[in-house]
Amino acid sequence: MNQRKLQEFQTIFYPRSIAVVGASHDRWKFGTRYLQALIDSRFKGRLYPINSSTDEILGIKTYAKITSIPDSVDYVIVAIPARSVPDLLDDCADKGVKTVQIFTAGFSETGQDEGRRLEKVIEKKSRDGGFRIIGPNCIGVYSPAQRIPFGPMHFSVEAGPVGFISHSGGVAGNLIDDGIRRGVRFSKVVSFGNGCDLDDCDYLEYLAVDPDTGIVGAYLEGAKDSRRLFSLAKEISKVKPMIIWKGGRTPAGAETAASHSGSLAGSDIIWKAALRQTGVVKVENHEELVDTILGFLHFSGFAGKRISVVAGLYGAGGGASVASSDACTSLGLEVPPFTHETKAKLAAILPEAGSILRNPLDVGSIGANLEILNMAIGLVLTDPLIDILMIQVPVDFLVGLGSKKIFQDTIETVVSFRKNQTKPIILISPYGSAVTERLEFERKLSHANIPAYPTFERAAKTIVNLNQYYGFHGQQGMRISSDTLRKIS
Amino acid sequence: MNQRKLQEFQTIFYPRSIAVVGASHDRWKFGTRYLQALIDSRFKGRLYPINSSTDEILGIKTYAKITSIPDSVDYVIVAIPARSVPDLLDDCADKGVKTVQIFTAGFSETGQDEGRRLEKVIEKKSRDGGFRIIGPNCIGVYSPAQRIPFGPMHFSVEAGPVGFISHSGGVAGNLIDDGIRRGVRFSKVVSFGNGCDLDDCDYLEYLAVDPDTGIVGAYLEGAKDSRRLFSLAKEISKVKPMIIWKGGRTPAGAETAASHSGSLAGSDIIWKAALRQTGVVKVENHEELVDTILGFLHFSGFAGKRISVVAGLYGAGGGASVASSDACTSLGLEVPPFTHETKAKLAAILPEAGSILRNPLDVGSIGANLEILNMAIGLVLTDPLIDILMIQVPVDFLVGLGSKKIFQDTIETVVSFRKNQTKPIILISPYGSAVTERLEFERKLSHANIPAYPTFERAAKTIVNLNQYYGFHGQQGMRISSDTLRKIS
Repeated sequence: MNQRKLQEFQTIFYPRSIAVVGASHDRWKFGTRYLQALIDSRFKGRLYPINSSTDEILGIKTYAKITSIPDSVDYVIVAIPARSVPDLLDDCADKGVKTVQIFTAGFSETGQDEGRRLEKVIEKKSRDGGFRIIGPNCIGVYSPAQRIPFGPMHFSVEAGPVGFISHSGGVAGNLIDDGIRRGVRFSKVVSFGNGCDLDDCDYLEYLAVDPDTGIVGAYLEGAKDSRRLFSLAKEISKVKPMIIWKGGRTPAGAETAASHSGSLAGSDIIWKAALRQTGVVKVENHEELVDTILGFLHFSGFAGKRISVVAGLYGAGGGASVASSDACTSLGLEVPPFTHETKAKLAAILPEAGSILRNPLDVGSIGANLEILNMAIGLVLTDPLIDILMIQVPVDFLVGLGSKKIFQDTIETVVSFRKNQTKPIILISPYGSAVTERLEFERKLSHANIPAYPTFERAAKTIVNLNQYYGFHGQQGMRISSDTLRKIS
Repeated sequence: MNQRKLQEFQTIFYPRSIAVVGASHDRWKFGTRYLQALIDSRFKGRLYPINSSTDEILGIKTYAKITSIPDSVDYVIVAIPARSVPDLLDDCADKGVKTVQIFTAGFSETGQDEGRRLEKVIEKKSRDGGFRIIGPNCIGVYSPAQRIPFGPMHFSVEAGPVGFISHSGGVAGNLIDDGIRRGVRFSKVVSFGNGCDLDDCDYLEYLAVDPDTGIVGAYLEGAKDSRRLFSLAKEISKVKPMIIWKGGRTPAGAETAASHSGSLAGSDIIWKAALRQTGVVKVENHEELVDTILGFLHFSGFAGKRISVVAGLYGAGGGASVASSDACTSLGLEVPPFTHETKAKLAAILPEAGSILRNPLDVGSIGANLEILNMAIGLVLTDPLIDILMIQVPVDFLVGLGSKKIFQDTIETVVSFRKNQTKPIILISPYGSAVTERLEFERKLSHANIPAYPTFERAAKTIVNLNQYYGFHGQQGMRISSDTLRKIS
């Protein structure tokens, strides 16, 4: 069963050859941009531009028709006007093509009779012709293992454990782009637009059994078969963390969704109630989506509710401590007092003036003294009342010190703690002016299994989401994801 | 009265000379870092390091004591241990110093008897000695017109219309740093820590009458005299937009606040209710604080509730349109349909396939065709049912096109609309990999009075906050802040 499903999707995510219809000498045409990105990504297969008025595009031999290609063609990308698509699909059938990804829009999402009719035509042609359709009205597939870029967008990173399906190419593109920057790596992403043939549930069934996918995410604006979707979500979330962002949760959003992907959004109350019974995490926007995926990537198992905060590094001040208490406890987490033992030991190493010797710990008084910081983190982490450490490192302040050595030493100090114990550590890394340095700092901590969040609120919401998932599925006790270090390049 | 208040604070924000006590040859000492930042900022007055064991620090002639300085001293920065502060204050009194800013912590915020006693001592010395105290336990003053940096943090930008007071140096520092990057400029900022002499209300009374301050913000963890604070807030918000972030809104946050600035946080419900009657905007975190200040900086007057969204530039997809509808309407704003006339005109210029010809308008089909984009924005802006335009420009997609010309042309296209009509335009500029280009894009639009927000949610919340303020004070009709173009460098 699983093998059959994997086989069925083989030419969708691992095609050996791709023809691009709609590429030309105009570099701004979407067809040309798809082809360019395939070249830039060093696609692991043969490429065939299709164009009857030239012999070569971007240095690649070009054919007049799909049927003129001498070798077999697994996958066709279509970026030509909607009215020309049906004839092209006849050629695809003749050629024995397995998968057709239709970027072209102008089908049922227009809400017009002609668009609906055209979509019915191509759907029938796919059934009759023995090929599957991705789309129409979609960006298509991102499959880094096969070096397939995401439409015109080329990302030069390796594959990882996150699979994602999306009604929206923009949402998927933003997720990939923002995710990669934060250390998320993907197995497969597919934007499937109107989903006239393969739809949300088909792709999810594949991701459920795909051995390279450990975390499943979805942006959905509705469901053609909500009963099947909810039942499938329940099955998947038993074995893989699953996150759904439901677009169109307000009446205005739902109306927009209908025009966008032709989806019937359905009531948000019903979605909320139904998803609650599946153990899926429901998120509300792009930030929460990336944040939650990042959390699942780094930590598996119930995270616990008892947060310790270390803030005020380099004298950055206690306002962050107050904000962290507000952020964590207003979301239902706890910032409990340290044990008497921890307090006493902290008091022995930290000057009282300029510090706050309680949880959240403010180490503002020690300036850039990393030796004391090191001891303080050690004390906090071994406190038995604490499940998770959030440490705020304002990289702008750090850069302001003007010492490359302190910058590197801070990284090593924090990283060394991750290596020597099992409690999760989360970096709170506020956006500031020193962007390059912040990204470098975050990248190095991410390699050590310490994910970065820009605010306490977003980190706290992530913990709440992870706890909801692992609580529902009865998995107690936080483990560090074994895959992560291997999969994050 | 106003003149007296301004005169009273003259040596706080415009001192002609500053002595730094605690500077040495150790560059990591806070005293040294204050001095270094004053030098880097080219402070508009005389500088006197105080240190009895050297004649010169950072190239500046150094005196053994305050009383050895031959000329007058307006302002003293104190970064020495708490126990040594009382004797120093005697010197300050002898010398006729006007203002003493005490960075040193270890006073009432420790919660210990000794700290409380010391704070009483310095308070009395200030009364007896005829000088005012900023602090203790604070970063102090940022006064760009006088070229006073914010403690050790030097910012190389001009002054602007935003005044801000803060119980936390970290919160103030983050606001300045993040704000400057987004085009916010400050008249005066003061972090006053425990506020043993001058406290929240004193500084607010000054900002109320300061002609260089047009917008007043505050981060407060409590109030020594809440009746006076709320009454003052009511007076100020009648004449200047006022924003308060109240730290310690949860019980855990309130406990932290007590240890941080010695504040009694008080119930959040009381603060909410009291502030609602003052017409002050209450915000919940750093992001909302900066966002709201930025909104007030660019727009004055009731903004209206009817939002139009233009998204999908460069084919970035309709997911953003759905998300924008959800974000705006869930906060109580409207995304109303366009008039029939607007719809008909849009249909005449935009291909149906790949576009969404309703509000939110998705121009995904036109790729990088700026001529059509230009016409589309024009149509949307002149629609009589629309108050505000939010336009999403995913700079990563824009950079991905690889054309410097399209990048510049997009800027000009959007900016030209701002110049030719009066409806507010807000840029939605998602965080992505192309950080440098995004900041350049945002800066250029900001100069044209188009502020940038990273998400629709944050832009929508800002509009809600502005509407609450101008609604309360009965100011109808959005005007573009006249100060902005002049004040943003």
